[in-house]
This record gives sequence, structure tokens and C-alpha cells, in this order.
Amino acid sequence: MEQIDLNCDIGEGFGTYNVGFDEEIMPYISSANIACGLHAGDYTTMNKTVQLALENNVAIGAHPGLPDLQGFGRRKMAISPQEAFEMVLYQIGALHSFVIAHGGTLRHVKPHGALYNMAAVDSKLAEAITEAIYRFQPELILFGLANSELIKAGKKIGLQTANEVFADRTYQNDGTLTPRHQANALIHDVEQSVDQAIRIVKKRKVRTIEGIDIAVQADTICLHGDSPSALHFARMLNKKFTEEGIKIFKNK
Amino acid sequence: MEQIDLNCDIGEGFGTYNVGFDEEIMPYISSANIACGLHAGDYTTMNKTVQLALENNVAIGAHPGLPDLQGFGRRKMAISPQEAFEMVLYQIGALHSFVIAHGGTLRHVKPHGALYNMAAVDSKLAEAITEAIYRFQPELILFGLANSELIKAGKKIGLQTANEVFADRTYQNDGTLTPRHQANALIHDVEQSVDQAIRIVKKRKVRTIEGIDIAVQADTICLHGDSPSALHFARMLNKKFTEEGIKIFKNK
Amino acid sequence: MEQIDLNCDIGEGFGTYNVGFDEEIMPYISSANIACGLHAGDYTTMNKTVQLALENNVAIGAHPGLPDLQGFGRRKMAISPQEAFEMVLYQIGALHSFVIAHGGTLRHVKPHGALYNMAAVDSKLAEAITEAIYRFQPELILFGLANSELIKAGKKIGLQTANEVFADRTYQNDGTLTPRHQANALIHDVEQSVDQAIRIVKKRKVRTIEGIDIAVQADTICLHGDSPSALHFARMLNKKFTEEGIKIFKNK
Amino acid sequence: MEQIDLNCDIGEGFGTYNVGFDEEIMPYISSANIACGLHAGDYTTMNKTVQLALENNVAIGAHPGLPDLQGFGRRKMAISPQEAFEMVLYQIGALHSFVIAHGGTLRHVKPHGALYNMAAVDSKLAEAITEAIYRFQPELILFGLANSELIKAGKKIGLQTANEVFADRTYQNDGTLTPRHQANALIHDVEQSVDQAIRIVKKRKVRTIEGIDIAVQADTICLHGDSPSALHFARMLNKKFTEEGIKIFKNK
Repeated sequence: MEQIDLNCDIGEGFGTYNVGFDEEIMPYISSANIACGLHAGDYTTMNKTVQLALENNVAIGAHPGLPDLQGFGRRKMAISPQEAFEMVLYQIGALHSFVIAHGGTLRHVKPHGALYNMAAVDSKLAEAITEAIYRFQPELILFGLANSELIKAGKKIGLQTANEVFADRTYQNDGTLTPRHQANALIHDVEQSVDQAIRIVKKRKVRTIEGIDIAVQADTICLHGDSPSALHFARMLNKKFTEEGIKIFKNK
Repeated sequence: MEQIDLNCDIGEGFGTYNVGFDEEIMPYISSANIACGLHAGDYTTMNKTVQLALENNVAIGAHPGLPDLQGFGRRKMAISPQEAFEMVLYQIGALHSFVIAHGGTLRHVKPHGALYNMAAVDSKLAEAITEAIYRFQPELILFGLANSELIKAGKKIGLQTANEVFADRTYQNDGTLTPRHQANALIHDVEQSVDQAIRIVKKRKVRTIEGIDIAVQADTICLHGDSPSALHFARMLNKKFTEEGIKIFKNK
Repeated sequence: MEQIDLNCDIGEGFGTYNVGFDEEIMPYISSANIACGLHAGDYTTMNKTVQLALENNVAIGAHPGLPDLQGFGRRKMAISPQEAFEMVLYQIGALHSFVIAHGGTLRHVKPHGALYNMAAVDSKLAEAITEAIYRFQPELILFGLANSELIKAGKKIGLQTANEVFADRTYQNDGTLTPRHQANALIHDVEQSVDQAIRIVKKRKVRTIEGIDIAVQADTICLHGDSPSALHFARMLNKKFTEEGIKIFKNK
Repeated sequence: MEQIDLNCDIGEGFGTYNVGFDEEIMPYISSANIACGLHAGDYTTMNKTVQLALENNVAIGAHPGLPDLQGFGRRKMAISPQEAFEMVLYQIGALHSFVIAHGGTLRHVKPHGALYNMAAVDSKLAEAITEAIYRFQPELILFGLANSELIKAGKKIGLQTANEVFADRTYQNDGTLTPRHQANALIHDVEQSVDQAIRIVKKRKVRTIEGIDIAVQADTICLHGDSPSALHFARMLNKKFTEEGIKIFKNK
């Protein structure tokens, strides 16, 4: 029986601002990537979200981002590898404190937004990030774009890694995601997204925008929690996975 | 032979801003209270300061403050006990990550500025803060104003506590500090400060502004690191303590 | 024919965060109080919101708040009158730049949240705030709680003032609002709120929670834009006002 | 008699943090570029610095930067021209309010750090910035790197421009500054800097690092206020200019 991890970015509000459907989506996922206060999230949100994940038996990961609340960590910034090391360490530690205060265990780390994208192609940044994770706790699992520099750096330093794939993004022949500025970058049709997810899990293949099948390694599927259809998609995915005999990984 | 701890607030710069004389003062103290990014400090400063403390064999403490960089955590804010719990937990965790990344041990926690003062008199805030510390790591030592609500709450929950006294502040007959807005609140003369410190350590007594001697419990003496005379005072204190046979506590 | 101003706090998102129903509510109000970047709002939101107000022929006001995004400017902070002067000046100036860049005119200023409440009872803060407004532009209209210290300070310095009343809050016999922590502080029933608003405008009277009628001066009615029923209330109020022959003030 | 403007970045502290020698350097300069709260500065600092400039009869300019206090506005960020327009407008407006509250006049605008450098080469950013300035007040003078895209955009939209040159930076044959990462980018010798400044003013020429003389247009010379030798350099420059019969422009 196939098994797959479903991860979602969670706890991305700030102060009185809320985004997404954290409570509603928790029952449908197996991994929560929780914002740590720099690109989003604050100590109150983190505290609440960690408890929510524990109640739902969802594995908890840190979701460190760039120090840019206004840009939600999506604007590239010229940071040094040293700064990347420090900002990731800071954020993992901050989130970890809530996890242990509530009797849980921190399980993984997934960089956010521009930091995720920059680390996917910049080996120096990737190494700095993985060193921060490894030094904090070598047992942590690194989530990163499948086959990225980040995943490579994680393996090199000795971290367990999880290749992330996207159900609602299209792929190019070389295995990379179609850039967001292209018209066909996103899959808006929920059914089509679900089909792509099932094929990835069962066949380890994805149909590219040019129409050929390529192999893809998938340890975890990303579910975007802030889109209006997120909840619908999460339910559909869970339903179809059950029908297809795909088990969604859950903490034991 | 008497022994006393000398603590100092350290790492209170932010970005390109520096304050104090961190490198110069480290050799003269035994405990460093390191800012954690909310009232001062940032991940780069924290990373550097933690290493500096380890090199100088100085015990490391978290110095959590209110989320008010502009006011340096010195402006009172209407926060709930729940928020106090969360902000202390966040900051301890963030600092802790740098300590373990560099092979050290977090030893104590001392709240900063307005948070320290509010927790000295508000038992609900005090309990929330001590619960955050205890839940993170029950072995941590709580630094607080001698005989304050904070120290009481720490003892109640089961934390080891350190009563803090001030060499450069005057005391009133009831054992509290003379409020800062009074003209005689501060001791500007370095020699007089040193004398007060030695009497506190050797006789467990302090002469009040009204001229009588009162008993005072002292586990740690605070050395203000940002005043122009800080370094001079630190050197004088170390010299006189050696002459008087007082040992400054150092990590083994 | 009676005439009244309807004001609403607008543009209170930040970065990717949105709150309220700015676009939907604009057609129903006559004055927009636009957040200026400290308690909420950012330059992108301000730019967009100013244009939205101009398109809807709604008068534009600055809505300065405390420098506390996390607390949405609702947490009291210990600030000096000097700081109040400076923070209000800063925020008025920042908003004003967008207004003139789009060919509009800044018409009023209404402090936000804790700053509004603190200035309602603290005459020193009130004077500092009104001095900032007056020095920036003496023609600006000051919006404040009816009969508050803020309104008094505004009159004293020579500003035009607008006494603000609330349709969805209950009043006490002394003319003050029932404090929010009391169970009967808020009027949740839309019809009852509309009735209170109409009585205030037509009779200049409000029925207190103790059941007697008191006189109330009303130059502007506050419409809370972030509650789920805000839009429904706005529509009802506009409809009933029309039926009752009450004209909602609009820019000429 | 030659005349030149001497400008300096001023008011770049934040909260309790101070940098530079604002009070000491004011008497030696003719233009102050005052930070506006995003990369540095806050409303208290701005208020104080504006008054200081007025007392010294120094022309006041806004010094808008990227929203990155931690990086002091020196880290490049991926911002859109629209965001550049908005952030410049916001900051000019904010500073302007202090200038008029104290009876002064805003005279110029000089972008800061990474924003200055990005706008020097990116015509879209340059146009967005100059549009913000022009829409706020078409009489404002734009300060920018001599011959940069920023200066070109300013001329195009109809702003008065001031080509900025550097006394303590070396030039390349094509008229651009030697990049900072090169060993010979900075002139550390004060006398040599003063000589370069005098040649620029009197001969409109500068000797490049390759040893040839090139023409350079100079309307204003930048004096770095945060280096340890800033004050010494300012005094030397003033002294030598007087000896050479060069007048430093001052507000009439």
C-alpha cells in the first residue's frame, strides 16, 4: 500500500490578522509547516498552532522565512549564507520552544517562500541552512523542492530529506516547476490536481506541460492552505487517496 | 570564601547598531543576559554574542523583553499573562538554539526592562513568565529583583532562583530600590558602588538612603553594561573583590 | 433636513493581510479613516485605499495609531506626550503624501484604538496630539469621542472638531460608553443599532442602559468595518436614513 | 567664486540607538539627508534632526530607503517599481510633516543605500522614484549618482537634479565608482580625499584608478557621516575650501 505525506503551511497569520483555514485543514494533512515570526506568525499564533497540530496528531515542522513580514517572505533579499544560517537557527529554536512546552516533538524543517526558492538553486545558501538544522538537531527531516540544491545539501550533511512535489503546479520537461509568471504555471482545476497527485504517488510520474511523462520523486505533497479552494482540495485528495488505497502518513 | 555572581545585559545591539562594550566587559563578568530579538538583539548579534560568552567561559542566560525595539523594551505595555508566557517562551527558544549550535548550555533567564519591572509586582505576569521557563527547561535559573513577585513565582513553580541586587542603585528602608525619578536613585560614584557591592556580599547588608542598615539577599549583582563608566566599574569591582577575597562565580 | 457624517476605519490590512470589506463599504460612508503604517496599513495599502476613497467621493482622514502592529494599536503603551506628538505628525504626513499625489485633500484626523482611548482621558496626550495636527494643517478636522479630553484640547488649540458617537455601543447615564468588558457594552442587533443612530441624529438623545434618555452631541457616527455584519449594517443604515430624510454628508 | 553643496546622511539612529555625529557635523555641511523611518530613523529622531538642521541653517532632504531596518537598507530586495513609488512617497511625506511643523521647507530627496544603487542602474525603478517625488512636490531637487539612470529619470520628468560625487571613493575610466569589493575602492587618506574634492570642484576633473583624468559633473559632494574620521574630514574640507576660495552652499 502506497503511503504519502501531505504537508501544508500553517499559522501564517500575524497579530489580529488571520489567513487560511488552519483549524479546518488540520484533519486532512499529516505535516504542518508552522511560521516562526519573521515572514509571518507571532508567538501567540505559534503557540495556538502548535497545540492545534498536536490535537490533530499532525507532525510539526518549522517553516523559517526571510525577515520580511510586509512581503510575506516572498521578496528575494540579498542575504549572505551566514545570515541564512542565523535566521534559520533563530526560527527553529523559537518554534521548538512551543513544541516542547506542549509535550510534542519537532519533526521537520521546510524553508519558506523566497528562502525556499533561493536555497533550491544556491548551494551556499543551501549548505548554510542545512548546517543550521543539523547543528540544532541532526534528526530533523529537511523538506525541499525535489532534486534541488537544498535537498542535495541536506543529504551531504547527513539530514534525512523529503522531496516535495506540488499537486497544483505544472512541471517542465527538465523536472522543474513552470515559473509562476507563465500562464500555465498553476493548475486551477481541483480534479486535475488530484489526478496529478495520484499519478505522482502511484506511478512516480508526472505529465509535463509539453505532454511527456517524466519520473518524479515524491516524499511529501504540498497543499496550499491559503487559496479559497484549499479546503475543498484537501477533502477531495483525502477521499480519492482512500479510494485508491493510498495512505496518508500520520504520526504514530 | 565568599562567592558572588556578576551579571550583565549583553548583545543589545540591532543590525548595524551597536551598544555597550560587549567584548571588553565579558572577561569581568560571570553571567551574560543576552537579548533575544524583541526589545533588542537580532539573530546575527545573538550568534556572535553567544560565541563571545562561550570563549570567555561566561554563563549564558536569555534576556527576554517586550516586543518594542523602538522603546528598547522599557515602555510598559498592556500585555496579558498569556502573552507574557508566549513571548518569554519564544525568546528563550530562539536564544537556546544558538547556545546548543555552539555546544553550550543555557543556564538562566532574566526578563528585561519593563517586563522585569512589571513582573516584579504583578503576580499573574510573574507566574506566566515562570511557567514558560519551567516548561522549557525546569533546570533553568530565574534571575529577578530580590524578594519580588517574580522570585516568589519562580520558587513556587520549582525553579532555582537568583535574587538580584544593584551596586549602583540606592535602596529604601523597605528593601525596594529608590524609584528612578528620584534624584538619589542612582549611585554615580564608582567607589561608592563598589563599597555597596562589597558590603552586600560580605555583610548581606545595605545602607538605605534614610541611613539605616537593612538585610539584603544577594545571589547575583547586576552590572549595567551600557553606561560610559561600565568598563571602569567592572574592572574596579573585580580588583576590589580579589583584594577582599570575594570570588566571582565562573562556569566550571 | 438632518445631515450626519458616517465614518469608518479603512485600509487596516498589512502586506498580504487583508481585513474588513473596504471596497464594499466605501459607497455607504462619507468619511474614511485610513491607517498610516504603525498599528496597521502599509504604503501599498495606503496608496490603494486613498484612491478607493477618491473614487467613491469619500472624505479622507488620517487614522494614526500606536507603533504596535502585533497588537493592532489596541494595547496601551506608556508613551510620553512628546512621543504622541511625533507619532501623529509622522503618520499624518505619510498619509497626506498619498492624498496629494492623487489630487485629493486630507480632511480629518481620528486617532486609533488605544491612542484614541488614552487621549480621551489624558489631557496632556490630547494636547500633544492636537498640536501635531494643528501644526501640520490647522484646517484639519479632529474626530474624537464626544466630550472627551481630546475634543476639548482640539477646541482649545483652534481645530474644528467632530464629536463621534457609536451606533453599536451602549451608553451610561453620565454619557460615557459602557466599558467593553461589561456584557451589555455592545449592541449586536442591527435594527436596534440603526434605531439608536436615528434617534441620535433626529432627537440628539440616546437611551442609556439604565433606561433614561440623555442628550448627546453627534457630528459623526462610527461604523465598525471589520465585523462580519458591518456591510449589512451599513446598508440598513443608509436605507433607513433615506427613509427618515437624514442625509449622509458627502464631499461636495 | 566656485560654490559647491556638501551633503551628509543624518538622523540614522533608531530608538535608543545612535550613530554618527549629527550635532558635530551639522555646522560643516549644507545639505542634510534625513532618514525617514524605514531603513533607519524614527519619528523621535526625525523630529530632533529636523530641528537641528534648521538651527544650523542646513537644507533639509528626505533620505528614503528600503523597509529593512535590520539591514540598514543596504540589502537589495526584489521590489517592484510600484512599491518603490509608494515607499518613497510614504517617506517623503513623513519627513515633510516634521519640516513644516517646525517652519522649514523640504528641499531635496536622496534615496538611500540599496535603493540608491538599484535606481542608479534600473530605469523603471528610477522612473517610479522620480514620479513619487514629482507628484509630491515638483520643486524638490533630486540627488543621485552623477550620470545615473536616476538622474536621467529625474530630468525627464522635470525635476531639478543634483549630480552627486564622492570625495572618498575612487573612480574608473568610464566615470563609475570602483566597486566596493575592490581593494582600491575607498580613499582612506583624508588629505587625498580633500584634494580629490577640490579638483572636482575647481577643474571638474577626477584622476581615475588607471591614472587618467576624466571630466566629472559635480553639484553636490557626499560626506559620509558615520565613519570615525568623518568629523576630521568635514573640518579639513571646510578649511581647505575656504583657503581655495570655494564657497559651501548654504540656505539663504
